[in-house]
Amino acid sequence: MSNKCVDLVLITPEPLDESKVRSYVSDNTAGAISIFIGTTRNHFNGKKVLKLEYEAYTAMAVKQLQEICNDARLKWSLCKMAAVHRIGEVPVGQPSVMVAISSEHRHDAISAVSYVIDAIKASTTIWKKEVYEDGEGQWKANKECKWLNEDKGAP
Amino acid sequence: MSNKCVDLVLITPEPLDESKVRSYVSDNTAGAISIFIGTTRNHFNGKKVLKLEYEAYTAMAVKQLQEICNDARLKWSLCKMAAVHRIGEVPVGQPSVMVAISSEHRHDAISAVSYVIDAIKASTTIWKKEVYEDGEGQWKANKECKWLNEDKGAP
Repeated sequence: MSNKCVDLVLITPEPLDESKVRSYVSDNTAGAISIFIGTTRNHFNGKKVLKLEYEAYTAMAVKQLQEICNDARLKWSLCKMAAVHRIGEVPVGQPSVMVAISSEHRHDAISAVSYVIDAIKASTTIWKKEVYEDGEGQWKANKECKWLNEDKGAP
Repeated sequence: MSNKCVDLVLITPEPLDESKVRSYVSDNTAGAISIFIGTTRNHFNGKKVLKLEYEAYTAMAVKQLQEICNDARLKWSLCKMAAVHRIGEVPVGQPSVMVAISSEHRHDAISAVSYVIDAIKASTTIWKKEVYEDGEGQWKANKECKWLNEDKGAP
């Protein structure tokens, strides 16, 4: 079943259409659908967050998302996959990233979604800024970013 | 945050309203939503499946779902939880069970959804019958049912 389907991979400034992403992974051969949605939460380290702002090196990030999906297909038996990320301003409560995967058996889809969202956080050219109630935040790499960790490990 | 929210727990003969369950776990304090949807797949052991039929000892199953949610809250830091199961006929492609959980950080929600769906399969009073194209199936306990495994282990 692997690699027969074209994965839905998208970086977009538009609000994410959750129902469209959900529908994309529908498949009568699948008994399981696993979904992860990352949303803007209203606090970070005790500060009130108003919104997040995301920027991406989009052409590279799209390739990275596709590679992450391809890697997941090698590890698990999956049917349909979607990995979408919003850029620009994302207000509190709204989704910035969504991963949806269908599979015949549930452990494949659940494990693959966990892998894909971890990989997106660790290795895509997408950056975020938290905008606080008491003033501007800073652009920053994700704390899980593997480049950042490699830098930390350098002499 | 744990135990402040009332969990949505439901056994219903109606088609599951995925968007309603998704909306239930929305929370501005959450940065993560994890969802699992079990659907009727069109095949089992090489046979073409037309539909599944579920029956439940509903009063007990509702209590079991609530206990499973309570157990998950003890293990992880969760915000809102929903665990719903359809009974009766569930045609191919349609959802029979849905678990949705929000949390501040993603690993809590993802781990808890995996735990909850495993526990539902293993320990609730819900039975299913697969109805094949070439004839009727049999009512059966879930192969993961812990009662079944205890029976197997008995002398």
